[in-house]
Amino acid sequence: GSAGAASQPGLASCTALFCRPAFLQLTPEELRRADDHTGRAVQSPRDGRRRLPWSTGYAEVINAGKSQHNEDQACCEVVFVERRPSPRGRQPSGDGSGEKGFYFHYWALFDGHAGSGAAVMASKRLHLHICEQLRDLVDILQDPSPPPICLQHDARAGAAELSRAPLTEDNGEVPSDALPRFHLEKAVSHESLVIGAIENAFKHMDDQIEQERASQSISGGCCALAAVYLMGKFYVANAGDSRAIIIRNGEIIPMSREFTPETERQRLQFLAFLRPELLGKEFTHLEFPRRIQPKELGKKMLYRDQNMNGWAYKKIEEDDLKFPLIYGEGKKARVMATIGVTRGLGDHDLKVFSSNIHIKPFLSCFPEVRVYDLTQYEHCPDDVLVLGTDGLWDVTNDEEVASVVMEVLTSYEPNDPCRYTMVAQELVVRSRGVLKERGWRLPNDRLGSGDDISVFVIPLGGPGNYT
Amino acid sequence: GSAGAASQPGLASCTALFCRPAFLQLTPEELRRADDHTGRAVQSPRDGRRRLPWSTGYAEVINAGKSQHNEDQACCEVVFVERRPSPRGRQPSGDGSGEKGFYFHYWALFDGHAGSGAAVMASKRLHLHICEQLRDLVDILQDPSPPPICLQHDARAGAAELSRAPLTEDNGEVPSDALPRFHLEKAVSHESLVIGAIENAFKHMDDQIEQERASQSISGGCCALAAVYLMGKFYVANAGDSRAIIIRNGEIIPMSREFTPETERQRLQFLAFLRPELLGKEFTHLEFPRRIQPKELGKKMLYRDQNMNGWAYKKIEEDDLKFPLIYGEGKKARVMATIGVTRGLGDHDLKVFSSNIHIKPFLSCFPEVRVYDLTQYEHCPDDVLVLGTDGLWDVTNDEEVASVVMEVLTSYEPNDPCRYTMVAQELVVRSRGVLKERGWRLPNDRLGSGDDISVFVIPLGGPGNYT
Repeated sequence: GSAGAASQPGLASCTALFCRPAFLQLTPEELRRADDHTGRAVQSPRDGRRRLPWSTGYAEVINAGKSQHNEDQACCEVVFVERRPSPRGRQPSGDGSGEKGFYFHYWALFDGHAGSGAAVMASKRLHLHICEQLRDLVDILQDPSPPPICLQHDARAGAAELSRAPLTEDNGEVPSDALPRFHLEKAVSHESLVIGAIENAFKHMDDQIEQERASQSISGGCCALAAVYLMGKFYVANAGDSRAIIIRNGEIIPMSREFTPETERQRLQFLAFLRPELLGKEFTHLEFPRRIQPKELGKKMLYRDQNMNGWAYKKIEEDDLKFPLIYGEGKKARVMATIGVTRGLGDHDLKVFSSNIHIKPFLSCFPEVRVYDLTQYEHCPDDVLVLGTDGLWDVTNDEEVASVVMEVLTSYEPNDPCRYTMVAQELVVRSRGVLKERGWRLPNDRLGSGDDISVFVIPLGGPGNYT
Repeated sequence: GSAGAASQPGLASCTALFCRPAFLQLTPEELRRADDHTGRAVQSPRDGRRRLPWSTGYAEVINAGKSQHNEDQACCEVVFVERRPSPRGRQPSGDGSGEKGFYFHYWALFDGHAGSGAAVMASKRLHLHICEQLRDLVDILQDPSPPPICLQHDARAGAAELSRAPLTEDNGEVPSDALPRFHLEKAVSHESLVIGAIENAFKHMDDQIEQERASQSISGGCCALAAVYLMGKFYVANAGDSRAIIIRNGEIIPMSREFTPETERQRLQFLAFLRPELLGKEFTHLEFPRRIQPKELGKKMLYRDQNMNGWAYKKIEEDDLKFPLIYGEGKKARVMATIGVTRGLGDHDLKVFSSNIHIKPFLSCFPEVRVYDLTQYEHCPDDVLVLGTDGLWDVTNDEEVASVVMEVLTSYEPNDPCRYTMVAQELVVRSRGVLKERGWRLPNDRLGSGDDISVFVIPLGGPGNYT
C-alpha cells in the first residue's frame, strides 16, 4: 500500500476482470508455496517490502468451488488529498495555514456477487472517489472554526474561498465573529462533512460502475466496507453484509451493522407500497411466513406489512398469492427471490430470473458511516479494528473473533509487526476449517465457511506507533 | 383502575372534551387542597380506594398556562380478554385448556397537542382496541406450541378452531407433529403476535378517531405510550416523544425511543422524494441548516437528502428556495413548519398554516414495541418501569430520574404501597420546579418544564407481590 495522489478517478482505466490487491501480488515461488493441495491456501503479504501501513494484518482465502476466482477484493492505501486549485489563482483567505492538503489512511473489503467485476473496480477506485469528495473540504477541515453553512463564491470557485460575512446585509461595521444569529442555524460539525463526503463517494462509485459497465464488461455487484482514518478519527462505512468491530481491552464495540433483506425489510416494503409498479405484478409487498397455495384463498394467514414488526392474521386474497418481495430467513432471505444483500455497489443490470423486473431500485449504494474517535481513549497494541466479509462472520461470531485476537496477540511480542497478520491468518483458518472426508470442518465438527473470506486486522495503538 | 371487560369499543361513547383519568377523580375537598396558589399543584391518587394495580405510582401537573386544561391524559386498567365465541358454537380443538380468556395489565400516557380531544378519546379506548385484537389470539397464546401459520377455517370462524394438518395433501396417515417441513416456513413467536396485535390496535384507534372526529368534535392529536403486561412480559409501545425506561438494580434499560422530525428525517424525506405532490409545491424534501435567501442562488450550501446522515455542499437552485420539509433543531424541529412529533394518533385535519397541504401523510400511527421479559430476572421492590411524557424528559434525563427513583425508594419501607406514588410526585415536582420571580425554576436555577408532566412508576417486583 503506497501513497497515491488521486485527482482524476474518471481517467484511470480498469481492464482486469480478476486481480488481487496490490499488496498481495505474490512471486511465482510464493504462489507455488501457497498452492496447497486443497486449493484453499490462506494468503497474506509475506515480506517487509509489502508491509501494510500501521503493520495492518491481512489474510484471505478463496471459496470452496463456488467460483473460479476470489470474488472478495481488498484495498489498503494511504491517500493524499490535495487542495483543488482555485480557478482565480488566489490563495485562501482567513487563517488557512497554507497546507496543500492532508493524508487519509484507507482499508476496504469488497465482497462481489454474480462476478467479481464490480468488486475489482470498486477496490481500485472507491478511495479515489473519497479523495475527490474531500478535495473541496481541505481548507474547511483544517480550520478549527465551524464549517461555513454557505460558500460565498460561486460554485466553480470551490471551497477555497470562504466568507463568514453577514447574510442579512453586507454591513462592513459588524465584525464577523460578533454577528447575532438572526437566522436559526443548525451547527454542522467537521465530522459530519467527512461522513457526507464518504456517503457521496459511494454514490459516485456506483454511478461510475453504471456508466462503465458496458465498455468495461463489469458484471455483478459487491458489498463494500471501508475504514477511513482521518485527523484522529476512524470513519467506518458499510454497505452490505460485511462487518467491522473494534476490540478494545477485550471489549467488543460494533462499528457497523448488516444490510440484508431482513434488516431492511420495512424500507423495501415501504418503497414497494409507494411504487407498486416496481413489483411488476409478480410480487406482493406483504411478507408471509411461507408461500400461500391457491386453495388457501379465504383462510387466515400470518403477514406483516411495512408498518409492522409483529405478525397478525389476515384473510388471504388473490393478490396475496403473488411471491413476497422479501422471502426466506437468515442467510437464505432474498429480495424478489434474487439477492441476499440490500446495499452495495453495482447490480445495475440485475433482474428477477426470466423476467424484466429490475432489482436495483430496491438496493441502496449508500453506506452507514460510524465514527470512532481514536483520541478519546488511550489504546494499547492489543486494541484492533477487525474488518471481515461475511465468510468470516457466518461461522465466527464477535466473541470468538475477540478471543482469537487476544489469544494470538499474547503469543507475539507487542512490537512484532507480524502479529496482526498472524491474527488475520488465524481468523481465516478458523473460519475456513480443515478439509476432511465430509468437507471443510471446524474444530467442533460444524461446517466451515465455504465462502470467500477476507480479513483486515488494524492496530489502534496509535498511528504514531506504526507509521 | 378497575377491571373492565371490553368487547365493543366502537359502541362506547366519548363526549367529554376534557377529563382526568378515572383514578384521579378527586373529591371537592381534595381539589381545594390541591389547588395551590400557583395553579400547578401536583396531583396523585390519594386514598386506598383509588390504589392502582401493583401499587403503581402516578402523578401529574398541568402546564404553565399553555392551555386551560391538561392536554396529557393517562389510563391504567386491568382488562379481561374474553375468547370470541365460535360462530359455529363448537369448542376449540386441540389441547385448549378450556380457559375463557386472560387478563392484561395496562398503563398508558397520551400527550395531546392542538387540543385534548384525541388524547381523551385514546385514553378511553386504546386498551379496548388492544383487547379486541387479542381476542382472536386467546387460544393461540395459551397453547405452548408455535402459533399456526395459517388458520384452516374461514376468516369468519376466527382463531378458535386451529389445525396443523399438512398443507400439501390432506393425508390422514401423517401425524401432524411428524410432518416434514416441505415448505420453507418462518417460525413466528407468540411474542410477535402480541406485538402485531398492539401495532394494529394503534391503527384501529387512529381509524376510529378519524371516523368519529366530526361527530364527537375531536380536535388535535396525541402521542401515545402504552405498557401492556401479559403472560410474564412487558410490551412497551411508543408512538411519539414520550419515553419509558426500566431502572433495575440502578441500571437504566431504555424501553422506547422518541419519534421526532429529527429521528425520522430520512423516512419523511424518502416519502417526500417518492411522493413530491405531498409537498404542495411549497416545500423541498432536502434539509438545509438554515433558510436560503433568493440572492444566494448559485452559491454552494450545506444540505442532506434522504440517503445521507452527513452533510455536503450543493449549488443552490431555484427549487432549494422552498421551505424545507424538516426544519429546526431539537425541541424546535418541525415537519412542514407545523408539528414537532412524527408518530401518534389523530391529527387527521392538520394542515400547514393558511394552506391546503395535509400533514397526516407524513405522520405514522404505528408504535415501536419493545419487549421486556419479567421472568428472565429476579426483581426487587426497587426495580421500576417509569413512563413519562416529554414534560418530564425535557428537563430530567434518564440518570437523574434513576437517582430520584433510588433516593425516594430508600426512604420508604419496601412494603409501603405509597412509595411509588412518592417517586412519581417527586419526579414531577423536580421537573416542574418552583415558582420564583423569574418563572418556574429548578434547584440549579435552570428553567423548569412549563409543559404538562405525567409520570407512571410501575414496580417490577413481580405481580404476585402486588395484586
